[in-house]
Amino acid sequence: MNNGKKDSAILLMHCPDRKGIVADVTEFLNNNNGNIITLDEHVDRLANVFFMRIEWELDSFMIPREKIADFFEILIAGKYQMTWNIYFSNQRPRMAIYVSKLSHCLYDILSRVYAGEWEVELPLIISNHDLLSPVARQFGIPFHVFRKNQENKQEMETQELGLLQREKINFIVLARYMQVLSEQFISHFPNKIINIHHSFLPAFPGAKPYHMAYERGVKIIGATSHYVTGELDAGPIIDQDVVRITHRDHVDKMIMKGKDVEKLVLSRAILMHLQRRTLVYGNRTVVFN
Amino acid sequence: MNNGKKDSAILLMHCPDRKGIVADVTEFLNNNNGNIITLDEHVDRLANVFFMRIEWELDSFMIPREKIADFFEILIAGKYQMTWNIYFSNQRPRMAIYVSKLSHCLYDILSRVYAGEWEVELPLIISNHDLLSPVARQFGIPFHVFRKNQENKQEMETQELGLLQREKINFIVLARYMQVLSEQFISHFPNKIINIHHSFLPAFPGAKPYHMAYERGVKIIGATSHYVTGELDAGPIIDQDVVRITHRDHVDKMIMKGKDVEKLVLSRAILMHLQRRTLVYGNRTVVFN
Amino acid sequence: MNNGKKDSAILLMHCPDRKGIVADVTEFLNNNNGNIITLDEHVDRLANVFFMRIEWELDSFMIPREKIADFFEILIAGKYQMTWNIYFSNQRPRMAIYVSKLSHCLYDILSRVYAGEWEVELPLIISNHDLLSPVARQFGIPFHVFRKNQENKQEMETQELGLLQREKINFIVLARYMQVLSEQFISHFPNKIINIHHSFLPAFPGAKPYHMAYERGVKIIGATSHYVTGELDAGPIIDQDVVRITHRDHVDKMIMKGKDVEKLVLSRAILMHLQRRTLVYGNRTVVFN
Amino acid sequence: MNNGKKDSAILLMHCPDRKGIVADVTEFLNNNNGNIITLDEHVDRLANVFFMRIEWELDSFMIPREKIADFFEILIAGKYQMTWNIYFSNQRPRMAIYVSKLSHCLYDILSRVYAGEWEVELPLIISNHDLLSPVARQFGIPFHVFRKNQENKQEMETQELGLLQREKINFIVLARYMQVLSEQFISHFPNKIINIHHSFLPAFPGAKPYHMAYERGVKIIGATSHYVTGELDAGPIIDQDVVRITHRDHVDKMIMKGKDVEKLVLSRAILMHLQRRTLVYGNRTVVFN
Repeated sequence: MNNGKKDSAILLMHCPDRKGIVADVTEFLNNNNGNIITLDEHVDRLANVFFMRIEWELDSFMIPREKIADFFEILIAGKYQMTWNIYFSNQRPRMAIYVSKLSHCLYDILSRVYAGEWEVELPLIISNHDLLSPVARQFGIPFHVFRKNQENKQEMETQELGLLQREKINFIVLARYMQVLSEQFISHFPNKIINIHHSFLPAFPGAKPYHMAYERGVKIIGATSHYVTGELDAGPIIDQDVVRITHRDHVDKMIMKGKDVEKLVLSRAILMHLQRRTLVYGNRTVVFN
Repeated sequence: MNNGKKDSAILLMHCPDRKGIVADVTEFLNNNNGNIITLDEHVDRLANVFFMRIEWELDSFMIPREKIADFFEILIAGKYQMTWNIYFSNQRPRMAIYVSKLSHCLYDILSRVYAGEWEVELPLIISNHDLLSPVARQFGIPFHVFRKNQENKQEMETQELGLLQREKINFIVLARYMQVLSEQFISHFPNKIINIHHSFLPAFPGAKPYHMAYERGVKIIGATSHYVTGELDAGPIIDQDVVRITHRDHVDKMIMKGKDVEKLVLSRAILMHLQRRTLVYGNRTVVFN
Repeated sequence: MNNGKKDSAILLMHCPDRKGIVADVTEFLNNNNGNIITLDEHVDRLANVFFMRIEWELDSFMIPREKIADFFEILIAGKYQMTWNIYFSNQRPRMAIYVSKLSHCLYDILSRVYAGEWEVELPLIISNHDLLSPVARQFGIPFHVFRKNQENKQEMETQELGLLQREKINFIVLARYMQVLSEQFISHFPNKIINIHHSFLPAFPGAKPYHMAYERGVKIIGATSHYVTGELDAGPIIDQDVVRITHRDHVDKMIMKGKDVEKLVLSRAILMHLQRRTLVYGNRTVVFN
Repeated sequence: MNNGKKDSAILLMHCPDRKGIVADVTEFLNNNNGNIITLDEHVDRLANVFFMRIEWELDSFMIPREKIADFFEILIAGKYQMTWNIYFSNQRPRMAIYVSKLSHCLYDILSRVYAGEWEVELPLIISNHDLLSPVARQFGIPFHVFRKNQENKQEMETQELGLLQREKINFIVLARYMQVLSEQFISHFPNKIINIHHSFLPAFPGAKPYHMAYERGVKIIGATSHYVTGELDAGPIIDQDVVRITHRDHVDKMIMKGKDVEKLVLSRAILMHLQRRTLVYGNRTVVFN
């Protein structure tokens, strides 16, 4: 959300923990007249890794926008062996949505985009069915169908990748997309594909989690948003939430209650990603807020 | 909770679903001048099983207390092949607590018993260590230590069973008891041993669930109370709850946050059991409230 | 939700509590071959009022649909001085939505209607602005603007009532409609107008609750769905929920987090109303589920 | 919680927001060989106030513990007009508990203290009744009764203050203490008296909130921990939480469910206070975690 705010830059970084990192970075910004808006840091003491998100205003910052990365790398990042990225608030990320047959997450996303809740571009929706094309049409978003099967999967993914690259897509949201992407495909968007899984992982990975939850007789069900990796439903978790159920809730009622959690947990993850609040380290996330 | 209320009876039953069950049972009570306080029913349509909990006042009920079971079996239950139990509000169940080294659940239970929150008798605490004997002493509850190992487990359990029978124990609460009971032992208390497991099952069964949760990078942790069966952490779930964590919560902080959920979820399960609100069917519970 | 289920009837009733009500009603259904699907009852012991919701299958019920009300009144209801209603599962209630400028609740409702989540007809949307007419157009729902001010309010409401009656509207949903309806208008839809208020009532009634919440420094915010009465934000509450905030959440972020709660709490209330699970007594609701 | 950790210092501060604060403070620590463990900051953009909590290890810090305050004031704090405090991890705060007749919060606190969950000293419990003296005796904590009435209130409070000062009490916890403290008394412990109120404030301040909640027909009840000020139940809120209720929950059941929230919300507030995570500004808190 940047409405009415001045242009700003966001640094996301992690590196081996050492003394002096905060002092050096903040002094660098301060000396160059960059007013810090927020600073959030975290140390993983087990892994001895330091994480930081820092946002500063650009209007009186003395280093030109296009040179910030170069200066930062040479003056600061190299010294600490940082893994880092700098983002600018005036860059609106370009998102692609993947769907299959269920519309609840798609509608939730589209209504937020349409209402201007998020700073994002949405140039296209991709599906393996045309069932939801009317929804895309309601919102005037191009809808592309790639009908995949075992034989043509590689070829289809190649075509998808071409489309995504032509449209300069920065990240992908799987809004209840019921197909598995290949490792090869995923490797083009590392920690840039957000999936919603309809259980509180690691319980009930894979297909039909509500049926499995019913079988087990649980009293809460949930949803998990995570970055997609090569291992199914095992990527770094961004957000989770749950809802209470009772013995009265058969599978169909669990599915209905679950949908409300799914769309909320997915949209919260998208917002965190859009605001560059997520850092992935190993198989876990740091989510600054 | 029965303070100041009249004596009442509670029927818990299930049977194959058929027309007329509610009408027949309520007519039976009505014709014999039993004023119904609450009636709660549930039909599992997949299994075609009908469940009911019904509570009625005894003061003007025409059938003497000691004959109710006999009359009910002959006039009603036989006709519908019911599995049933009748409880009386003036019978205070006798509970045994099992503990190991952690005191939080034990204190939570003891403080409720001591404050008169529950209708229960607590004649004894059993442990495999003497670490928590001072807590038992604070509340004046006899504390029995059975130091089990692989060799003497069977012998120890036999002694425990003897003690439990002498003390007329109706049900057992495992308040973070870190030993596995034998199937043989469990068979003496079917659906009468309540355990608290420190994860939202079926995620993270077995040992060290918080460590596993940390490894997986989850954003919520939880606790599960369930009836103990022969299969570890797989019995019918009574209640569950969760608490949100962040990347800042290392294992020690997860353990601390988790304790608050554990004691709450265990105490809620005990209350449901005490109020005869739980029915077990297959591997799931019906919890009327 | 009635998909694939047999036709059924739902009785909602309350009356002074007496012995025999459940027995009489269930015997009436049973004797006439009505298979009870669910029965839920509640006794308010302070007010001495008995409430019940009972649903039964119609396919082999011996009393014809159009005579059920008459038979029930004469054989049962009169005896107990019941206030009651019978609904049929094949009657889809007709809902009107009122909106002003915010789209989040409207989109949430429309996406559920469009996806077939609810058994409802939605013939029209009414607003005091035309800002959201494009949303109505996306979903092909007629959108009517009544620009009210102090002078024309009575005249406008008369026109609205005419429209609502012509369209045979059964109940109204105020989906963040920012105008106060007159008592006269409300009297035409007693307990049939559902409002969403953006605070956990009774905290922060009236205008700008998020600003008031910020001023007070609360750590949770919430939303309340309730039936509209003549007194502002004081009608019988159907559902409430909350979300945790921190010192970092300024008013704009509270508004954004709050929207997610508002749309959820409103949609849950609509579902409860559609499924005839709500009974109003005094200024409170019984919500059977 | 400081078990096994090195000695550390914690700075809590706020001041008018300006460029360079983080850089100056972190450079001050860094130059003097202080390893920062955590840094958390917040800017209230409306009030233009900067808040920070920073913790650093003392073992190789070059400024001796007793001179840190002096150096910090002269080198840093004066320049920015900071309001600040420095705490040391080896100082265990001394807490006094006030109770009346209900034991649930008291037990929850005592069981945590006894189990070593908190870094705190608890030299005394004060009450206006002797009802809970047996609880104090169970845990071996001195229990002082000050029977107050309108006439002797000032005299009693003077005696209490004398006792609190002799015992070097740092902060007070009102664990369901049902008397109002005078402004004069409160002025001796500014933002150092933590109260638990049994509603989600600002709803239902004052006496009998559960009865008021029942009257209003709410669907959630809650509890609020806050610092005590001269205005009843209106001080800066530290934490809040809620629990869902239904039409089945009469006042006595609300009271029972509410107790579980009260003790949790109070204990969480105590922990935040003990860990020096709370900053009060105006009538609101910043709670770093």
